[in-house]
Amino acid sequence: MAAAKIIPDPNYEERVRASFARQNAMATIGAELTLVTPGIIEIEMPFSEKLTQQHGFLHAGVISTALDSACGYAALSTIPDDASVLTIEFKVNLLAPGRGVRFLFRGSVTKPGRTIVVADGQAYAIGADDEAKLIATMTGTMMAVTGREGIEG
Amino acid sequence: MAAAKIIPDPNYEERVRASFARQNAMATIGAELTLVTPGIIEIEMPFSEKLTQQHGFLHAGVISTALDSACGYAALSTIPDDASVLTIEFKVNLLAPGRGVRFLFRGSVTKPGRTIVVADGQAYAIGADDEAKLIATMTGTMMAVTGREGIEG
Amino acid sequence: MAAAKIIPDPNYEERVRASFARQNAMATIGAELTLVTPGIIEIEMPFSEKLTQQHGFLHAGVISTALDSACGYAALSTIPDDASVLTIEFKVNLLAPGRGVRFLFRGSVTKPGRTIVVADGQAYAIGADDEAKLIATMTGTMMAVTGREGIEG
Amino acid sequence: MAAAKIIPDPNYEERVRASFARQNAMATIGAELTLVTPGIIEIEMPFSEKLTQQHGFLHAGVISTALDSACGYAALSTIPDDASVLTIEFKVNLLAPGRGVRFLFRGSVTKPGRTIVVADGQAYAIGADDEAKLIATMTGTMMAVTGREGIEG
Repeated sequence: MAAAKIIPDPNYEERVRASFARQNAMATIGAELTLVTPGIIEIEMPFSEKLTQQHGFLHAGVISTALDSACGYAALSTIPDDASVLTIEFKVNLLAPGRGVRFLFRGSVTKPGRTIVVADGQAYAIGADDEAKLIATMTGTMMAVTGREGIEG
Repeated sequence: MAAAKIIPDPNYEERVRASFARQNAMATIGAELTLVTPGIIEIEMPFSEKLTQQHGFLHAGVISTALDSACGYAALSTIPDDASVLTIEFKVNLLAPGRGVRFLFRGSVTKPGRTIVVADGQAYAIGADDEAKLIATMTGTMMAVTGREGIEG
Repeated sequence: MAAAKIIPDPNYEERVRASFARQNAMATIGAELTLVTPGIIEIEMPFSEKLTQQHGFLHAGVISTALDSACGYAALSTIPDDASVLTIEFKVNLLAPGRGVRFLFRGSVTKPGRTIVVADGQAYAIGADDEAKLIATMTGTMMAVTGREGIEG
Repeated sequence: MAAAKIIPDPNYEERVRASFARQNAMATIGAELTLVTPGIIEIEMPFSEKLTQQHGFLHAGVISTALDSACGYAALSTIPDDASVLTIEFKVNLLAPGRGVRFLFRGSVTKPGRTIVVADGQAYAIGADDEAKLIATMTGTMMAVTGREGIEG
């Protein structure tokens, strides 16, 4: 199969790290960037009792928050440096409870593009035994925007 | 069109409020239950700088967190009182930036059921002028589970 | 809530009908355009034994085919006449079996836009008693493209 | 990562082939089963002018029809032989036009389960040069049902 070529902007890592640092939601959930490569991003965070749903597991929305950032930065790493990324939509499947000591979220670009970038994500719960378990998947559609153009119009 | 009948459990409101109170993620994002009716739930929250993405707007994942809870509790309000609700999957479309003074999230049951409940949600940003703007929609699939059965198997 | 304004191109109906006529898949499934208004399209088709899944009901993919066209033409009716519409993605929830004498598919624009248009769809099965039953919902994201630009890049 | 174990029913292949043969929609679009293994199914079909959208490419709904069957049979191959599979919902991302001589659709089980099975699919267009190009991805949620139980309730 003909793979789509990803030619990263030379400053992709700096741009991803700077933008991530501005996402206050990432600090609030305790998330850190742990891998930044062209088209693949990883984010990790410890379990926190402040982020649970009613059974004491990580809330599906918090899983989605970290996956959305992972997919969005995977997209950002592949586009020109005068563009930013907006999430148009995403879908998340919750495969198992968000029960773990730590969590790892990976976002990968499935389809690069000038305007539309599609990324897929996986969320893993890591137990006290260091075993990783797939707990959720995401498919997200991102749009590269430049200048003042926005998703509003 | 033949509408699906929703016959609520008499204690639906108490169950929804008790479960919501156990979702620590709701307190963390400052969300409150503001409407609890059979099949329709509303959640509201103020804007917070701790929950932003890189442009200073509400993070799409936080919008999803509140929408998922609204849809989940809409489902919970329609099922027997010995069952709980798990989110199987959801999709969110982000229609406009999460820019506002407050936010309102509505979840409504589109298709009640014994095992599978489908709910739709809308997120609104409310400006300083009190105008509400639709910023996101969700479709979520929930499963009613009883006893020890879970989404894991 | 501030509703998004849809200002249709004066020739929207002619463009929608001409494009629909070129979609050979619509003739193959027996679908006809039965409502063309700015932002809302309806398509109808009779049940056919050639389009079933394993239990003899309308295949979920056929339901999606008609919903995608309904949503796509709802989008097309709202954009300038030099642009065409590509489906970026859609999600379908199957709420009840595709069992009926006829089927009606409605697509409506939820969020108009210059580049990205979001549309929602409903599919109804109509029984011998003329009762309509909601059998599926769709949310689709469409992109307006002009000139040689395409979803490929 | 701990992979989910799939223990197929011994008759899985026969069940998949028999059910596929009853899906009249598959014959109508010219689709054939070309791979049947536990948890992974492939379907192939030639291009047909009867199945196009307005630009002469394969209609997104037809792509979805074949992907839904591929994902559904991937799920069916992993569940007990007294159960059947219903599609609850799916999402499709269209990555490139459906332009090719032939098409291949793969469905794989991502998360097996007693009640809920999640499957992912890929659609490839195969050109005259025999190159395969990824044109669409699907994530689908399937439910295993036994007896008279259905998605309706």
